[in-house]
Amino acid sequence: MAEKVKVAVVGASGYSGEELVRLLLKHPNVELTAITSRANAGKSIGEVYPRFAKSTLKFCNPDVSELAKLAQVAFLALPHGLATEYAIPLLEAGLIVIDISADFRLRSTAKYEEYYGAPHPSPELLKQAVYGQPERYREQLKSANLVACAGCYPTSSILPSAPLLERKLVSTEGIIICSASGVSGAGRKVAEAYIFPECNESFKAYGVVGHRHTPEIEQEFAVAAGVDELKLNFIPHLAPFNRGINSTIIYNLMPGVTLEDVQKAYEEAYGNEQFVMVLPPKKTADVKYVTMSNCCQIGYNIDPRTNKLIVTSCIDNLTKGASGQAIQCMNIRLGLPENAGLL
Amino acid sequence: MAEKVKVAVVGASGYSGEELVRLLLKHPNVELTAITSRANAGKSIGEVYPRFAKSTLKFCNPDVSELAKLAQVAFLALPHGLATEYAIPLLEAGLIVIDISADFRLRSTAKYEEYYGAPHPSPELLKQAVYGQPERYREQLKSANLVACAGCYPTSSILPSAPLLERKLVSTEGIIICSASGVSGAGRKVAEAYIFPECNESFKAYGVVGHRHTPEIEQEFAVAAGVDELKLNFIPHLAPFNRGINSTIIYNLMPGVTLEDVQKAYEEAYGNEQFVMVLPPKKTADVKYVTMSNCCQIGYNIDPRTNKLIVTSCIDNLTKGASGQAIQCMNIRLGLPENAGLL
Amino acid sequence: MAEKVKVAVVGASGYSGEELVRLLLKHPNVELTAITSRANAGKSIGEVYPRFAKSTLKFCNPDVSELAKLAQVAFLALPHGLATEYAIPLLEAGLIVIDISADFRLRSTAKYEEYYGAPHPSPELLKQAVYGQPERYREQLKSANLVACAGCYPTSSILPSAPLLERKLVSTEGIIICSASGVSGAGRKVAEAYIFPECNESFKAYGVVGHRHTPEIEQEFAVAAGVDELKLNFIPHLAPFNRGINSTIIYNLMPGVTLEDVQKAYEEAYGNEQFVMVLPPKKTADVKYVTMSNCCQIGYNIDPRTNKLIVTSCIDNLTKGASGQAIQCMNIRLGLPENAGLL
Amino acid sequence: MAEKVKVAVVGASGYSGEELVRLLLKHPNVELTAITSRANAGKSIGEVYPRFAKSTLKFCNPDVSELAKLAQVAFLALPHGLATEYAIPLLEAGLIVIDISADFRLRSTAKYEEYYGAPHPSPELLKQAVYGQPERYREQLKSANLVACAGCYPTSSILPSAPLLERKLVSTEGIIICSASGVSGAGRKVAEAYIFPECNESFKAYGVVGHRHTPEIEQEFAVAAGVDELKLNFIPHLAPFNRGINSTIIYNLMPGVTLEDVQKAYEEAYGNEQFVMVLPPKKTADVKYVTMSNCCQIGYNIDPRTNKLIVTSCIDNLTKGASGQAIQCMNIRLGLPENAGLL
Repeated sequence: MAEKVKVAVVGASGYSGEELVRLLLKHPNVELTAITSRANAGKSIGEVYPRFAKSTLKFCNPDVSELAKLAQVAFLALPHGLATEYAIPLLEAGLIVIDISADFRLRSTAKYEEYYGAPHPSPELLKQAVYGQPERYREQLKSANLVACAGCYPTSSILPSAPLLERKLVSTEGIIICSASGVSGAGRKVAEAYIFPECNESFKAYGVVGHRHTPEIEQEFAVAAGVDELKLNFIPHLAPFNRGINSTIIYNLMPGVTLEDVQKAYEEAYGNEQFVMVLPPKKTADVKYVTMSNCCQIGYNIDPRTNKLIVTSCIDNLTKGASGQAIQCMNIRLGLPENAGLL
Repeated sequence: MAEKVKVAVVGASGYSGEELVRLLLKHPNVELTAITSRANAGKSIGEVYPRFAKSTLKFCNPDVSELAKLAQVAFLALPHGLATEYAIPLLEAGLIVIDISADFRLRSTAKYEEYYGAPHPSPELLKQAVYGQPERYREQLKSANLVACAGCYPTSSILPSAPLLERKLVSTEGIIICSASGVSGAGRKVAEAYIFPECNESFKAYGVVGHRHTPEIEQEFAVAAGVDELKLNFIPHLAPFNRGINSTIIYNLMPGVTLEDVQKAYEEAYGNEQFVMVLPPKKTADVKYVTMSNCCQIGYNIDPRTNKLIVTSCIDNLTKGASGQAIQCMNIRLGLPENAGLL
Repeated sequence: MAEKVKVAVVGASGYSGEELVRLLLKHPNVELTAITSRANAGKSIGEVYPRFAKSTLKFCNPDVSELAKLAQVAFLALPHGLATEYAIPLLEAGLIVIDISADFRLRSTAKYEEYYGAPHPSPELLKQAVYGQPERYREQLKSANLVACAGCYPTSSILPSAPLLERKLVSTEGIIICSASGVSGAGRKVAEAYIFPECNESFKAYGVVGHRHTPEIEQEFAVAAGVDELKLNFIPHLAPFNRGINSTIIYNLMPGVTLEDVQKAYEEAYGNEQFVMVLPPKKTADVKYVTMSNCCQIGYNIDPRTNKLIVTSCIDNLTKGASGQAIQCMNIRLGLPENAGLL
Repeated sequence: MAEKVKVAVVGASGYSGEELVRLLLKHPNVELTAITSRANAGKSIGEVYPRFAKSTLKFCNPDVSELAKLAQVAFLALPHGLATEYAIPLLEAGLIVIDISADFRLRSTAKYEEYYGAPHPSPELLKQAVYGQPERYREQLKSANLVACAGCYPTSSILPSAPLLERKLVSTEGIIICSASGVSGAGRKVAEAYIFPECNESFKAYGVVGHRHTPEIEQEFAVAAGVDELKLNFIPHLAPFNRGINSTIIYNLMPGVTLEDVQKAYEEAYGNEQFVMVLPPKKTADVKYVTMSNCCQIGYNIDPRTNKLIVTSCIDNLTKGASGQAIQCMNIRLGLPENAGLL
């Protein structure tokens, strides 16, 4: 049997970090050798997450030189803005770095500055980073040393949209993305807005103008459409469930495009993809069918009265929207079966 | 003290019927004299709804001549298609009829037939019915004997949209309504799709093309805009909470319109309305703030990059979206304080 | 019409405070003249709780001399340990003080010190305080100037137990109270344990030994049983709903006691009570039937194999378990109809 | 590589059946060759459960001779009372039968008749069946051809109790089991009591006297205690989450027993068990830590005031409480690693 690849998770205290641990502990080809957390350093993982009580792993401090000795692959599950600090030395030490944060996703430093309010800390790394969405960038991922994993809302938007934009089935004008995310999408954030009685029996839009995922979505839509720039509306909502995102996307259909054209486009794009399931025409996706799986489900229908194509797309925000997709990227980079540890 | 008005609820077994009972039992100016239910006839209300165990009311069969003796006002909380059968004889017997179903909401018999698949059973009653949305039809309601209460999704859509359409602040083209409803919106419907484990930790769009509330919304939007016809997209979602609707509405802004123009429009329209609360600019509504209240909350913001106005609007589907609004209509018709029993 | 009584809520930022505001704003016989909150001082109530956007009330700082001018009744909705500081000067200034905290509930200063880890700050006030559970202490409440409202778990336990203990239908030995509370029972507490993804799809016991409500429950059980001391097990659980408590109580039945004896005891005790509903024999209570109401529901059954009486009891923890009961106490004290503002 | 064992699921339309399919499709040592459902016969599994859209399995009718050709192991996930009909011919055809229903769990035909209201259809099979709880009956399971998998509530009760009863740390008298189950515990049952608005924001006891799991729990407790008979109270509650059971168990401690004695008992019993996690003393279990896992978590504490031991125990009702445990039994029977497919 081949030797197991040693991997570390930097920042394992958030929900994406915990999901990485859950998946990596079961991954047949890797050994999880280090998990870091300043807050929990010294504690056993079972103390913090009783779910993993049978594991003997302990949280340690995020010491780069130590990590470089322990692992060949480092997953960064840190709040945005912190990834650069770890990515540079880890890359220099020869590790493959798979970043779950938003730090390396935007190719334009100007957009980064516009949406994040500060210059990008490492523009040269931006150039090196490969966007971590396997169905779109599989070839580049095979040799990527720095992977900028796609965001959760962007994943749920790009997967259903790219095949349509590439084939010019829909207009690049007037696209509306209306999404709803479970509360784990806010991370393990301790704030009044996220306590149970505030979120339960609640539903509300937020960030309806200028959400930070907007430029990421627009960037990848423009790539798919082959245009320089594209503007759309992305409107997220917070919904009372733990995991999952539904994106309902409304496009202006190009003249003469039929439901069959859409079906064919999806079959071409995803017929051989194991993590994208396209539903029969006129069905809608449901977040419950992808909970704790690495799949994206896509449904579609046409309103002939208004000539709109309405697409629904569901993922688990912590799996396909973060940690599962990160592992899928790692599998590709390491030449492992793409679904290893993700079955 | 003035004598209490005698009222009956026909079809008190559904969620809207139960909500009518909850509100009417506390209404200071009315006496609930009869509640009907074929399934529960003979049972005390406390047996069926332990919440009302202190009431001595009993369910009876829906006998029209009996009802005509017992009540001056009849609320019909029946599945669609059944209201006509009761409305005709009750109106003939001199009762005021307030219907919560969809039967008398569409003015066009052609639209009714298109969306309900059968000719309307009583076109002449359609003409007589006044649309039960007090903020829009208060004058007509003062003398209405047949009130066709506005639907839940329509109420959440029309209240925020009418002032904008009337003032030509937004285009009549390309309006998108993306709504999410709690599961009580499906009524007390016993079907696999609605059992707890299927709805909990679930979120999905449904009826994305051709939902029956679409023509009702389009009808009232056209009235507000002063046009003959208007087409839009209405996309409902089922969300895991009990009560409430959020509608997120995206409009194309007319040239030069500002956030202040929108604010002014809402102030003019709703500054004196006690059941519509317009939030400060850029805020978003939340269903939790209107649960078990008769209020509609409205938030709004402009995306200058795409020139879209994004409005969010929340109601409790069983209160402002059904039974509360029905009582508000009754109060107007009877000359009572509009908020009687709704405080 | 009689002049309205002026009331203030001290500490209106928690869930009990908010519930007091919700109920007092609708109370026909009182005027809410002041609400205090250090954190929110200066803000309008609608800014903090959009639900009350139509009210013009503003939060102010909790200045005692100011409060004494503005109000005749002061509700204290403060974390435990702070009530004394306000109660003393407000009582001296002639106000009626209705305290929702645990500060004045225990008659024994020794028990207070044992469970709260510090001597009671004002033993003399303890003697003066009347326990705020109207069905048990109605006469004393009529002249009480300091009311120590019963806790939420204690209310759900004492109401079903007192009639049984008084009539010696059950043993004072071996009583087990197994309760489940919605998350609002923890107050508006911002801590990781209470964020939505931690509480949703979760259920767990906590404080299974030594919970602070234990001595309060034991004190009132002993009073009812006419014994000096009584020991029991109280085991609370945190459950994923917003409001409500279910207490399932297991008693050793005294020899020969029948279901009819229990039924008769409850009828005697609560036949004329408007806020206690005793279900037919063998039924179980459900928290959903008392949500946002001031009622307690009680169900009971006997297991003849083990000679146990099993009682279930549900309340809304914020209403009958806190703010509603506080208003019921106020109504009694002021000679108002006991259900004023609570219908 | 060893040939895969062919397995069938009879009755794959319920939640336990679906969970079996979810786990068996990923099991490295088995091939799922047939899934039956009268209602869904002919449909692909993806049509019924979109989660499995990538599988090519189709539902077929439950034809015994067909099944006997297709599979070496048959899981029966049928409503109680139906298992006998399939078990007899499948056993005769040489299959291993693993039954998830309650049909073969009670060794006493008298108890079966008392609780199920009819004579047992096949007393001779009862004798042959091995109780499917691996931590208790591992040796017998190695050669069992008919496995009667332990029920969900019983599993959550027996695992924490057996080591205590065996070592006489607790009395056999006066045991109280207070459990709460998620709604999937009711199966995919379409009834008004289980629709979302009835279960959400609800919590209630049910079956507080005479629940059918009581004799199963008593039987296994008696075995562990080495007594002929044992009577206890089992009080289940329905709680608003999808999956999971918490059982809070209160025992009378035997004189002189300490927390350390309990700890030692659990270490002896479960130190080497991979699917039982005993928490540090004084901690409580939480259903969220076992969701979608095959583990049982156990917490414990002593109340010295009343001399009670209070144990909390959590499982996922569909996994360790049904399908996961069934697969664990199969793994033992087939000589596979006990955690195969259950990691």
